[in-house]
Amino acid sequence: MAPTMVSQQETLEAHPMNGGDGINSYSQNSCYQRGVIDAAKLVIIEAVTEKLDLKNPIFDSSCNSFRIADFGCSTGPNTFLAVQNIVEAVEQKYEKSALEVPEFQVFFNDHVDNDFNILFRTLPPARKYFAAGVPGSFYSRVFPKASLHFVHCSYALHWLSKVPKEITEEGSPAWNKGRIHYTGVEKHVLKAYFGQFQKDFDIFLKARAQELIAGGLMVIQMPGLPTGEVLFSRTGAGLLHALLGASLMDMVKMGVISEDKVDSFNLPQYHPSTEELEMVIEMNNSFTIERIGALNHPLRNVPFDVKMTSAQVRAIMEGMLKEHFGDEIMDELFELYTKKLADNYIVFDKEIRRDVDFCLVLKRKNN
Amino acid sequence: MAPTMVSQQETLEAHPMNGGDGINSYSQNSCYQRGVIDAAKLVIIEAVTEKLDLKNPIFDSSCNSFRIADFGCSTGPNTFLAVQNIVEAVEQKYEKSALEVPEFQVFFNDHVDNDFNILFRTLPPARKYFAAGVPGSFYSRVFPKASLHFVHCSYALHWLSKVPKEITEEGSPAWNKGRIHYTGVEKHVLKAYFGQFQKDFDIFLKARAQELIAGGLMVIQMPGLPTGEVLFSRTGAGLLHALLGASLMDMVKMGVISEDKVDSFNLPQYHPSTEELEMVIEMNNSFTIERIGALNHPLRNVPFDVKMTSAQVRAIMEGMLKEHFGDEIMDELFELYTKKLADNYIVFDKEIRRDVDFCLVLKRKNN
Repeated sequence: MAPTMVSQQETLEAHPMNGGDGINSYSQNSCYQRGVIDAAKLVIIEAVTEKLDLKNPIFDSSCNSFRIADFGCSTGPNTFLAVQNIVEAVEQKYEKSALEVPEFQVFFNDHVDNDFNILFRTLPPARKYFAAGVPGSFYSRVFPKASLHFVHCSYALHWLSKVPKEITEEGSPAWNKGRIHYTGVEKHVLKAYFGQFQKDFDIFLKARAQELIAGGLMVIQMPGLPTGEVLFSRTGAGLLHALLGASLMDMVKMGVISEDKVDSFNLPQYHPSTEELEMVIEMNNSFTIERIGALNHPLRNVPFDVKMTSAQVRAIMEGMLKEHFGDEIMDELFELYTKKLADNYIVFDKEIRRDVDFCLVLKRKNN
Repeated sequence: MAPTMVSQQETLEAHPMNGGDGINSYSQNSCYQRGVIDAAKLVIIEAVTEKLDLKNPIFDSSCNSFRIADFGCSTGPNTFLAVQNIVEAVEQKYEKSALEVPEFQVFFNDHVDNDFNILFRTLPPARKYFAAGVPGSFYSRVFPKASLHFVHCSYALHWLSKVPKEITEEGSPAWNKGRIHYTGVEKHVLKAYFGQFQKDFDIFLKARAQELIAGGLMVIQMPGLPTGEVLFSRTGAGLLHALLGASLMDMVKMGVISEDKVDSFNLPQYHPSTEELEMVIEMNNSFTIERIGALNHPLRNVPFDVKMTSAQVRAIMEGMLKEHFGDEIMDELFELYTKKLADNYIVFDKEIRRDVDFCLVLKRKNN
């Protein structure tokens, strides 16, 4: 009997971005993530040009199609841009090699409660690939063995499969009271978060190692800790999260929500350092690191925009916040939050520039 | 450059079944279609046991996964039952042949405005396959060349890509005035409908011939004309459609809708005879007919149920009717319709037994 493929699927947490295409939707508020994809375009072209071995018999176009998967795709349009960059780069490589260009099949993966209807309805009409949606957490197997040639994952792997248990336990040395994320100062909290990241990222690599053919490439973009920095709270992202926590604590003081409610809410995110990424990939032992480095994000060079940033954070976090605190406090919360961002304009304008987005190119080993 | 894959996609009509899981939804009103799938189970087992050649190198499990597609899957749960029957039959065949069972990948295809969100959210938790959704009309290519091992299509191919143009043209000999479907009596109307079916079914076969590997199987179920019968209006389905047309004409007499509105509405459906199916398949020349015959539907043997039938027709037709006549007349229309079904109880109880569902097993030739 073939094993049940979805054994651990149901226990994993999902944090879908806001669906639809309204004013608070992810599709209307993901220009930062788009910047990451634009910045990664050259990395993808370089990776395909220099690292993809079309002489590998498994890439022989006569035998089959070229299959690409974008993990954690959300609702678009960023994912469409990313896969277009990949398809064009691979197509050009085939043409330059005087090989017949294969047909492309692109798989869009995200949690089962992602809005796949809007994803499908906004697919680019003139695309050069056959599209498919694949529901399920990327912290589990979602594809057959050796069925993918190219894996992409942009701004998704910093989402943990769950909040580490010990940080919500009163009395635990890692109890994260009065905050909604780690700052880097409380070492037990940080250790619990890193432990969860290490476990999750390893599960991701193990699943993809089975799904990707030997010689296949994986390009990952994710936010991380700048080299030489030790405190997450001194990065732009860390400050954004700290101020969201502070806005919630203001609402505790105003009597709108209870302190317990804030204590029991924590963001399931981790922003690793280069060294941490390298360590997990090397211990996993299924991939060679072809490239690891920071992306030059275009938004780093424009002034900090309070309203846009607030809307972006809302599109990403609102689903989770609603589920925990209820629908009715959202407008007030994000008003407070927008004000706090404005109060910290100068700090942000400086810190955001120091944030870093990593871009990794990994190659599946033959083992 | 690879060709644009979706060239004709946008011009095709979609007739999605009612989404969601409410009282008028397809998922709650598709037990007739489920009966078809139950009745087809033995045909599938027999087809896999006798017609699937696992010695075909392309089926070698070590090389790849076994890929199944259900075309026109709608929102479930019927499609889940159908693919489970296929997966189990193929799995048993591998086990009996003492070959390693491959991993299965199942693709659920339907129009882009099908409710894929509910499809994904109701996937069986203990399934033995990796699931993917594929949006797009099956009257066009939706998969890469030679990427499927088994194709299934249940109760979908009687939906035409569009209403034949000539039947809506005043002055055309095929103008279908005062009716919403063909009856078989008006020869020009019938000829126009058959012409459209012939074109559409051939396009379907051409697309699937490219997507299915040589030796791959295709199982199709669809409603058809009983052998020896010449008039569609004398079948249960024909009568159901005639009475829906008559209910709309009643509303014209009541002044609720205009006669023009009814004249310009026609059902894009065709129920072919065995001979017509054989003719199109033979002219297409990509498939051998391994089996063609009627299914023994379990509901044929229970008394006609007025309310259930009315609800089933509503779940299927309401989307189309709303688009043409507006939302507000639906409740009244289906009240009238239910009454007409009750008035014709005895005729139906007899005619429905004479309806026929065909089940075809086709095998992709090596050409």
